[in-house]
Amino acid sequence: MHFSLTHNAYGKSKVRLTKVTRHDGKHDLKELSVDVLLEGDFAGSYTDGDNSKVVATDSMRNTVYSVAKDHPLADVEGYAIALARHFVDHYDMVKTAQVDVREQPWQRIVVNGTPHAHAFQSGGSEQGTCHAEVSGDRVFLKSGLTDLLVLKTTGSGFSGFVRDRYTTLRETTDRIFATSVTAEWTWNKTQDVDFSARNALIRKMMLEVFAEQFSLAVQQTLQEMAEAALAVCPEIDEMVITMPNKHRLMVNLEPFGQHNANEIFMPTDEPHGLITGTIRRG
Amino acid sequence: MHFSLTHNAYGKSKVRLTKVTRHDGKHDLKELSVDVLLEGDFAGSYTDGDNSKVVATDSMRNTVYSVAKDHPLADVEGYAIALARHFVDHYDMVKTAQVDVREQPWQRIVVNGTPHAHAFQSGGSEQGTCHAEVSGDRVFLKSGLTDLLVLKTTGSGFSGFVRDRYTTLRETTDRIFATSVTAEWTWNKTQDVDFSARNALIRKMMLEVFAEQFSLAVQQTLQEMAEAALAVCPEIDEMVITMPNKHRLMVNLEPFGQHNANEIFMPTDEPHGLITGTIRRG
Amino acid sequence: MHFSLTHNAYGKSKVRLTKVTRHDGKHDLKELSVDVLLEGDFAGSYTDGDNSKVVATDSMRNTVYSVAKDHPLADVEGYAIALARHFVDHYDMVKTAQVDVREQPWQRIVVNGTPHAHAFQSGGSEQGTCHAEVSGDRVFLKSGLTDLLVLKTTGSGFSGFVRDRYTTLRETTDRIFATSVTAEWTWNKTQDVDFSARNALIRKMMLEVFAEQFSLAVQQTLQEMAEAALAVCPEIDEMVITMPNKHRLMVNLEPFGQHNANEIFMPTDEPHGLITGTIRRG
Amino acid sequence: MHFSLTHNAYGKSKVRLTKVTRHDGKHDLKELSVDVLLEGDFAGSYTDGDNSKVVATDSMRNTVYSVAKDHPLADVEGYAIALARHFVDHYDMVKTAQVDVREQPWQRIVVNGTPHAHAFQSGGSEQGTCHAEVSGDRVFLKSGLTDLLVLKTTGSGFSGFVRDRYTTLRETTDRIFATSVTAEWTWNKTQDVDFSARNALIRKMMLEVFAEQFSLAVQQTLQEMAEAALAVCPEIDEMVITMPNKHRLMVNLEPFGQHNANEIFMPTDEPHGLITGTIRRG
Repeated sequence: MHFSLTHNAYGKSKVRLTKVTRHDGKHDLKELSVDVLLEGDFAGSYTDGDNSKVVATDSMRNTVYSVAKDHPLADVEGYAIALARHFVDHYDMVKTAQVDVREQPWQRIVVNGTPHAHAFQSGGSEQGTCHAEVSGDRVFLKSGLTDLLVLKTTGSGFSGFVRDRYTTLRETTDRIFATSVTAEWTWNKTQDVDFSARNALIRKMMLEVFAEQFSLAVQQTLQEMAEAALAVCPEIDEMVITMPNKHRLMVNLEPFGQHNANEIFMPTDEPHGLITGTIRRG
Repeated sequence: MHFSLTHNAYGKSKVRLTKVTRHDGKHDLKELSVDVLLEGDFAGSYTDGDNSKVVATDSMRNTVYSVAKDHPLADVEGYAIALARHFVDHYDMVKTAQVDVREQPWQRIVVNGTPHAHAFQSGGSEQGTCHAEVSGDRVFLKSGLTDLLVLKTTGSGFSGFVRDRYTTLRETTDRIFATSVTAEWTWNKTQDVDFSARNALIRKMMLEVFAEQFSLAVQQTLQEMAEAALAVCPEIDEMVITMPNKHRLMVNLEPFGQHNANEIFMPTDEPHGLITGTIRRG
Repeated sequence: MHFSLTHNAYGKSKVRLTKVTRHDGKHDLKELSVDVLLEGDFAGSYTDGDNSKVVATDSMRNTVYSVAKDHPLADVEGYAIALARHFVDHYDMVKTAQVDVREQPWQRIVVNGTPHAHAFQSGGSEQGTCHAEVSGDRVFLKSGLTDLLVLKTTGSGFSGFVRDRYTTLRETTDRIFATSVTAEWTWNKTQDVDFSARNALIRKMMLEVFAEQFSLAVQQTLQEMAEAALAVCPEIDEMVITMPNKHRLMVNLEPFGQHNANEIFMPTDEPHGLITGTIRRG
Repeated sequence: MHFSLTHNAYGKSKVRLTKVTRHDGKHDLKELSVDVLLEGDFAGSYTDGDNSKVVATDSMRNTVYSVAKDHPLADVEGYAIALARHFVDHYDMVKTAQVDVREQPWQRIVVNGTPHAHAFQSGGSEQGTCHAEVSGDRVFLKSGLTDLLVLKTTGSGFSGFVRDRYTTLRETTDRIFATSVTAEWTWNKTQDVDFSARNALIRKMMLEVFAEQFSLAVQQTLQEMAEAALAVCPEIDEMVITMPNKHRLMVNLEPFGQHNANEIFMPTDEPHGLITGTIRRG
């Protein structure tokens, strides 16, 4: 019997990294979780246990730290490209290197109105993401965010949908809309961009649209958030947004002799709606 | 053979609740997870399957929502006491009712510099906690917080500890100190207190001490944080603080021909140090 | 400015379902988590908030339960196809329906050597998976498993790999090999197959290869596991296997005057190697 | 202002350990997670940052491994006592040492009907637990288990409970009963006991009672499980059992023209009932 290895890749995942940069008594802090995944001439290790072209994943971990030492890490995007580039340039057998970075947010503790020079508190569970893929001279770069939790207590409805045998949901013109946004955008240039500023602007636009626009459907809000971000940031051409509908179910208080005037809800995680869309410029 | 039931308790856990309060076009939002635990004359259900004195946990869930409807929920403490009080007053067989509340933090989305009237984003993974226990006329009340993630990149050392056969740790006068604070404080009065303002002040004092004071040991910082909080808040008499030492291990870059000047670290979750202390006034 | 919606999909995730089937005093138990995802003529809800073609995700949840009531659920594959088929047949605007199922394993409690008729204990954290995709007349079907935790204390080495500036890992011919297998296989026929028996056989072959074959690399073991499964199951043509390398690090006991003869290890979750491969027949 | 440190303790948590024991070509495997917590003369580190009596938690971790090397680890109880004893004997300032162990279960892979000599698969998410506390000559020892998931599809009812304004639950004489048992038992002797055999017997009795006895209330089943275990194991005097009621809610299929004859349920994790009881011999 014959078998063929039609795809293979390997790497190191969840390499966690803290970098402290000191300048004039002030410390900057970056905390990242880095995944490296390589594709190339590695079939021999699968088919024959021949490791002669295998870069140990332990060495990849070492490289994550070594490259971070030499890189300023002002933004994550530059570091991700540099790290992916390293593997492609350093090893002939590597055809493509993918680097995925998640950034743990930290913000300075404020003491007497002043952000502290070296003490930080968590910036929450939302994380910035970055995906860099390098093949030969080609660089493909995306940035994003994950777990941006938002909720509006009104300004959202859902009506006019299909009604049939399986429909028990009531129409509403006033419901809570809660979601955890995951978004990713693709850069059309990979240098001479102030990535941090652009990422912050994209996030700001998404938040404003979520807050300000009446939502006729999660789908519609998703589209408007993507369009608003694309409109202000010419360096990106495409956005993918995924938004679960984290339901808040109205509690029936009638049995207790009370009227629930859209006040008391039960949040649930399971099941949840899931909406995704890809919006491109042009 | 004889057996005796020496302790019993039962209740409902993780009752999740959203309350929206509307006033003049502005919406307030509270999201809580509530646990109820009752003690009393319930032995019959254990020893004989006699449920005649058993309040169904499903009814407890209903009660969580019903009491929330009628309570202003301005602060969690008042609601927790009212809910615990309800069970003791409403059912003869209940001797003690414990209510534990965790509050999910939300903050208003800022649009054009203005906090939005009804749109919110997550306040992070830190949660406020409250424990109310009512037995007859007695009310016992604690507030707290959990998962307050903080990190300082310097201003922390650890030296002068026991050295013996099992010691491989090096002394240091400059290390990263990262922890996730869990703290709980006991109130000496349960009304006529602005709980929200007091809780915010206690939290502020803990953060400032963490940021400002050099740490000779996690233990010392814990003690100083508790003393600072007790000093400014006469309505509390006792604080329990627990702080894991979330190690950032310095990465050895020598094999790669680089010098790690306290810049590159590997964060780890396992294993972690764990320090706890109870500090009382007087 | 112009924008286009280049891809969209929506559905309901984590619909949890328990089905009890009674026959002659014996009960069968299935517990599933079901995700439904639809593609089709839904752009209007994104671009105009027009929900006239939108099947509410709440209705999808209802359908999961309704279809489960009428289906024997002898195997998950048949149910997944029936559910996906339902959405395509029932709604003109649905072009493709994807159904993903995870099965929570249960096994009968054994009392006096006899499997109990209606009492069960957990079958562990490993889960069976199934993916059915229906577009018009086309049915695409995969089955799999996730989180199959295995460990061998010997019979594994790693040597002959690339050594360079970033290499600190030592070669070894005797190491612990621990992993959590995720595997998925594609069926070349979607009926007249005893899916449960075939899935069990595929799992058995993977376990035997893992146990019996010396591993020169995680890659090699992965390939051998896939080939062994393909060899015994003509109804599948392709396997994708992903295996993290869940490292057990040898602890240095020399400072304590002890010699670690491959006995004492520290298990770690982060970072971990990650190896993936796709193997096809022919 | 004066403050006093009324309680303090510190230690190392989640020290993960793998031990492989080789005999005649067959390998035994133990995987543990160990927590150490010390109490004693440590106030100086809190109040003055004086670490002269502080055993670094890093040294505790080293000790976990070092003691495991010399101990046969045939059962976890003996190791936990030895480890706690070590800290009390080795350090004058330690008054009490607590050691908590969780054991990850592994079972041998069966190949051609024979358990393999050195290849293992997960024994599931249930874990064995052990708590040893040593103060001077006194040894206090408990064993237990956590996350024993069980479910019965019938043989369980709930009726005759309090009905009042807050009651919406219907009475039933036939419901699904699903729980995740946590149990802990206290030994009245700490040596000359075959702990592993006794623990297995206790677990077996709990499972049999759960399967065989009709349940009038979770409380009653809990009591019967504890009594059955105490009855067969004279070396234990007390059991604490905690059982959440992991509800399976019957799905209303009437809107879809179907009758749900106790077949189709929705499992939920939140909220859940929680029942606890302590049962003593005598």
